[in-house]
Amino acid sequence: MKQVRIGLIGTGYMGKAHTIAYRTASAVFPLSGEIVCEMLAEVDTQLAAARAGEFGFKRSTGDWQTLVSDPDIDVVDICAPNFLHKEMALAAIAAGKYVYSEKPLALNAADALEMTEAAEAAGVTTLVGFNYMKNPTVQLAKEIISNGEIGDVVHFRGTFNEDYLADEQLPFTWRLQRKFSGSGTLGDMGSHIINMEEFIVSPITQVCADLQTVHRQRPLPDQPGSTGTVENDDQAHMMVRFANGAIGTLESSRIAWGRKNGLWFEVTGTRGSLIYDQERLSELQLYTADDASNRQGFRRILTGPEHPDYAHFCVSAGHGLGFNDMKAVEVRDLIEGILTDNPMWPDFRAAYEVNRLQDAVEQSHAEGRWITLNRHE
Amino acid sequence: MKQVRIGLIGTGYMGKAHTIAYRTASAVFPLSGEIVCEMLAEVDTQLAAARAGEFGFKRSTGDWQTLVSDPDIDVVDICAPNFLHKEMALAAIAAGKYVYSEKPLALNAADALEMTEAAEAAGVTTLVGFNYMKNPTVQLAKEIISNGEIGDVVHFRGTFNEDYLADEQLPFTWRLQRKFSGSGTLGDMGSHIINMEEFIVSPITQVCADLQTVHRQRPLPDQPGSTGTVENDDQAHMMVRFANGAIGTLESSRIAWGRKNGLWFEVTGTRGSLIYDQERLSELQLYTADDASNRQGFRRILTGPEHPDYAHFCVSAGHGLGFNDMKAVEVRDLIEGILTDNPMWPDFRAAYEVNRLQDAVEQSHAEGRWITLNRHE
Amino acid sequence: MKQVRIGLIGTGYMGKAHTIAYRTASAVFPLSGEIVCEMLAEVDTQLAAARAGEFGFKRSTGDWQTLVSDPDIDVVDICAPNFLHKEMALAAIAAGKYVYSEKPLALNAADALEMTEAAEAAGVTTLVGFNYMKNPTVQLAKEIISNGEIGDVVHFRGTFNEDYLADEQLPFTWRLQRKFSGSGTLGDMGSHIINMEEFIVSPITQVCADLQTVHRQRPLPDQPGSTGTVENDDQAHMMVRFANGAIGTLESSRIAWGRKNGLWFEVTGTRGSLIYDQERLSELQLYTADDASNRQGFRRILTGPEHPDYAHFCVSAGHGLGFNDMKAVEVRDLIEGILTDNPMWPDFRAAYEVNRLQDAVEQSHAEGRWITLNRHE
Amino acid sequence: MKQVRIGLIGTGYMGKAHTIAYRTASAVFPLSGEIVCEMLAEVDTQLAAARAGEFGFKRSTGDWQTLVSDPDIDVVDICAPNFLHKEMALAAIAAGKYVYSEKPLALNAADALEMTEAAEAAGVTTLVGFNYMKNPTVQLAKEIISNGEIGDVVHFRGTFNEDYLADEQLPFTWRLQRKFSGSGTLGDMGSHIINMEEFIVSPITQVCADLQTVHRQRPLPDQPGSTGTVENDDQAHMMVRFANGAIGTLESSRIAWGRKNGLWFEVTGTRGSLIYDQERLSELQLYTADDASNRQGFRRILTGPEHPDYAHFCVSAGHGLGFNDMKAVEVRDLIEGILTDNPMWPDFRAAYEVNRLQDAVEQSHAEGRWITLNRHE
Repeated sequence: MKQVRIGLIGTGYMGKAHTIAYRTASAVFPLSGEIVCEMLAEVDTQLAAARAGEFGFKRSTGDWQTLVSDPDIDVVDICAPNFLHKEMALAAIAAGKYVYSEKPLALNAADALEMTEAAEAAGVTTLVGFNYMKNPTVQLAKEIISNGEIGDVVHFRGTFNEDYLADEQLPFTWRLQRKFSGSGTLGDMGSHIINMEEFIVSPITQVCADLQTVHRQRPLPDQPGSTGTVENDDQAHMMVRFANGAIGTLESSRIAWGRKNGLWFEVTGTRGSLIYDQERLSELQLYTADDASNRQGFRRILTGPEHPDYAHFCVSAGHGLGFNDMKAVEVRDLIEGILTDNPMWPDFRAAYEVNRLQDAVEQSHAEGRWITLNRHE
Repeated sequence: MKQVRIGLIGTGYMGKAHTIAYRTASAVFPLSGEIVCEMLAEVDTQLAAARAGEFGFKRSTGDWQTLVSDPDIDVVDICAPNFLHKEMALAAIAAGKYVYSEKPLALNAADALEMTEAAEAAGVTTLVGFNYMKNPTVQLAKEIISNGEIGDVVHFRGTFNEDYLADEQLPFTWRLQRKFSGSGTLGDMGSHIINMEEFIVSPITQVCADLQTVHRQRPLPDQPGSTGTVENDDQAHMMVRFANGAIGTLESSRIAWGRKNGLWFEVTGTRGSLIYDQERLSELQLYTADDASNRQGFRRILTGPEHPDYAHFCVSAGHGLGFNDMKAVEVRDLIEGILTDNPMWPDFRAAYEVNRLQDAVEQSHAEGRWITLNRHE
Repeated sequence: MKQVRIGLIGTGYMGKAHTIAYRTASAVFPLSGEIVCEMLAEVDTQLAAARAGEFGFKRSTGDWQTLVSDPDIDVVDICAPNFLHKEMALAAIAAGKYVYSEKPLALNAADALEMTEAAEAAGVTTLVGFNYMKNPTVQLAKEIISNGEIGDVVHFRGTFNEDYLADEQLPFTWRLQRKFSGSGTLGDMGSHIINMEEFIVSPITQVCADLQTVHRQRPLPDQPGSTGTVENDDQAHMMVRFANGAIGTLESSRIAWGRKNGLWFEVTGTRGSLIYDQERLSELQLYTADDASNRQGFRRILTGPEHPDYAHFCVSAGHGLGFNDMKAVEVRDLIEGILTDNPMWPDFRAAYEVNRLQDAVEQSHAEGRWITLNRHE
Repeated sequence: MKQVRIGLIGTGYMGKAHTIAYRTASAVFPLSGEIVCEMLAEVDTQLAAARAGEFGFKRSTGDWQTLVSDPDIDVVDICAPNFLHKEMALAAIAAGKYVYSEKPLALNAADALEMTEAAEAAGVTTLVGFNYMKNPTVQLAKEIISNGEIGDVVHFRGTFNEDYLADEQLPFTWRLQRKFSGSGTLGDMGSHIINMEEFIVSPITQVCADLQTVHRQRPLPDQPGSTGTVENDDQAHMMVRFANGAIGTLESSRIAWGRKNGLWFEVTGTRGSLIYDQERLSELQLYTADDASNRQGFRRILTGPEHPDYAHFCVSAGHGLGFNDMKAVEVRDLIEGILTDNPMWPDFRAAYEVNRLQDAVEQSHAEGRWITLNRHE
């Protein structure tokens, strides 16, 4: 049986989520090969060794470049902070590895394009962790739209709001600085809702946007009484127009009290509508004008074994998948892409398009006007 | 006991709703006087007489000008189509009547301003039918915000979507023509969500907007095979900035399958959030960061006798008010305003501000840029 | 035009609700005659006069027997406390009046039977205020079941829970004494859910029940430190079997924190299910096995003009009816029953059947066994 | 590092779920030792070998007794059909293994007691797969109740309804025969809701029950035109009284169209209430009378890192756990119980108590009366 040997860089939130996904995917899916958790890299040797023990990796290193150049690594899995993605990915590409990177791919479109072109030139297959579209419920939404079950799409309204920075007393971090994080909620959660819209409906061709930093100063963690200046957006608004002629709005906020995983969208077509709320990630609401007029209503479909990928997790409908299960589907795509030698999606180029749109958002906000992007269905 | 004698013009959807409200308000509220349904005007004498019988009005006329000039009418209640509001209101003002007009006040800001200035010059008290803000649940939302229970408001997201024109085979009507209706969903339902935001939070000082007509041709009702050209918007988007420094988005659609009374808003503050969904008009969801951190969640408050105005309808909490009950509260405001000689709200000037904003929306859409309005808290 | 002249006894919660309904029904429905609020009776002359002014009744009396014997009264409307229903109804029947009584009809089945037989012997038409089944949403539920859209009904689960006595510090009242109120939550709210089940599905033929008083002592309102002994049930459970072969459970509680109008039911058939929650009284959830298997889900139908009676209130779907609107439908049934000389439903006999079942519940609880009632479809 | 070597019998629904849980738990939790998927047993050698490959077990066998007697197995994990639990468990106990069995433990209380006494006599540690109580959301519910946050519990209403046999054309299976499955929905899903109530609130001391088989004949899968007779219940009702003085109702159905994972409960106390709906397994609704009276409402708490066990899965609140994650918590309890030499819960005795209650339910139904069990807090 073939093996896919993973080299994971970073053991924070996403590093652990990837590790869980490697384990879970092995048991859930009939993979074409075996996942081997080969090596783990962290910022120092001791931490790396400790985490490798916890996470069940065979080897560890305090130097990510050692991992990248190791001949027994097939996939470089980048879960380090955003500003490090570029250097790591370019090194992994140069080493001829498969590259699996967390999102956002880069701090700006220029960097993302450089990474994309390097991967394409080297013939390296890539995958970026926009995991939410891997949810069977979202796949079902796409299937319904593709089938024309709600007619032609005329509108998309999407938000991705959370409250993880709603408390203005939360301390200053790297996420609030442009050099380490690029844009704010736009790049962090906004990239998910942009990607979701483009996956579900149609590419964005025009955008007009507004950005705002609400809490401009945050306490510096180690300097009582001192504050750091927040350099990126807390709230982001976009009016958008799509290649298919529809229009929509996208929003993101990291200060929206009460929202915990508020990736939410409503898609309206000429014959029906869909609503998805990621805080209830195994439900899809479908309204169809094909029902008798006096029996129409939003129908709460609980994802089950008749829907994409769900049956691998559970044979009973409505039993519910969780956050980590979406990553397990993503890992399945990674492993099968590698073992069948097929492209994966979303790859670096798709992620570059998200970065490119984010740059357009910032330009639109700065110039107070619509920005047109040359993009097609 | 004092009487307030009503002259109602128009007996369609709103004419009947007003009639129900006059009856219901009499029984629900301890009014300072008696409501007399004095005279009703319709487009011809016969229809007027028939409807006066059904609606319980004492007299009727086929000529609205007769009604306006009748000395035994105190209030001219305008429920005629939008394009007639101006002429009727100006005549009623000239006759020194109280004027109670349905929204939108006028087809454009210039007309609304002329009407407003005429009323103010004549010292005539006016009220415009933005009934949704009369809902006890909405009044509760305003009370919570005013008390500072969610801190300082930093965001408002509101929609008012319905599907009454979602079916593209629905026939061409006056609502789709600029000379009779002005703008489309922007003026019809958009005016409600604009007014709601300004009532709840803060005046809009800047707007950047997008408008779209999706179904550009509709069948002419009496000419098989022929179509009429739709002249106004099916979908409207606004990015907005408020006098208090917060930002938000507003949307309206008349083609949003599944939405029946989709006036919905979420207000985010620095210490909590509120969500209101008018399809569940007796519920308000409150999230407060003042709850223990491991017990926080959106709290579904069912409106009850401890909240504004509800106790007049029912002494038990959560028993639910209906659409017509909101009009009954509005009628209470009308009658009490008259009998206590106090201003009513929203008056013509407030409604003019909504029209003015709608004009700015159309200008913004045409010019692809932000429009600034000179408005204050 | 014919008139129906109302004599109302009692001006508490229900007295006011009836008054609102008389007013609202007049404007909402095209009635076959005019409702005249003729006379109002209260416990003393002064209170009666004051309330007649507020409620808009022409005359008033401090002696209900004066009202009952007045020749210009057509309908005696009994909104007095439960223990007075019998005496008042018998007097009204003797006077040949139409009788419109609040529920529960009587404190026990023997009294209810006596009242029923008196009415039937006198040929007097009666109506009892089980208003919740008048809700267009509930009528829609019945229509769906009658059409066979969910197949044959195999199960009904219903509750009617509120929290109006959940706080154990609330004072002792007449509702807690058997001589004034009969049973507790069983008679008060339980009667509604029993009646609802029998309206929607099938008569109950067997019952096995449990009753419990949780808060056995309550503070006496005027005697600090003293308490009164609660004589009836706070919580009621019933396992039931129906004439059609289906089974179910019914529950009621008056101490269920958080429930404000918790009349809730789920009906399961061989091809689908329905859910109704009266805290969202304009919504019905329908699940049908006739949908494609991978598109099945509970469908939230918002009541609208295509459903029974709704169009009289509003021409737009989903705009929502309220608690008082259900009473307006009931009043329409009363007035039309009288003017067209047709029976009304639920009449005294139907209400007696509810009382009879309540007696069986108390017997079952006392004897710890199933009780069989001789009843048919 | 210590190892716990698993021998799994059965690779159907539950066999796979356990396998996923072993993998996931290893990555999610900082376990005190390593889980080794050592051997897998299935009904024949070939199937066993195939599944061992898929599931990642090191060895396989077509004879479960080989597995039980293997010296390199620490835990015998029984995921075979219900009627085989007893024989397998007794053999595993005799071999001195830890026993981890799926529920229901046995077909009746006598068998369950024999198994329990054998385990206790042998000093063997046991765990039964009542996984739903391992959900962090359910643990939170228990914590809230134990803290007294809703006062003293006075009521519990619970259901566990699904529709997996709602279609009357579904074929006859072993689950419908007493000798293979014991009772019907009572033993299958009813055991979960019984166990849940006892975990959350208080032991059941009295029960009065009703059982019904709705679809009495089902098509035999291999004999067109022939049917098999269903021998156990489709619907089960219980009125129950608890050791703490509270009362409640429990229901289960396997023919409830629309319910997919309908384990649902509402717990009412003297100061508040809780609602849990397993179709939304990461939400708990809390109502507390300690909120200001005009701000009370059910609060939707999304499970997060401040709640039990969640933080191991994800550091962000509201991101949602899934069905398999509950099994991963159960496996953590298994592994830690073994490695720290502590009892696990629910063990065979706790599961015997569930079987015992089920026997009382059947007796109550047969005799039409209350059955008292000698049980204590």
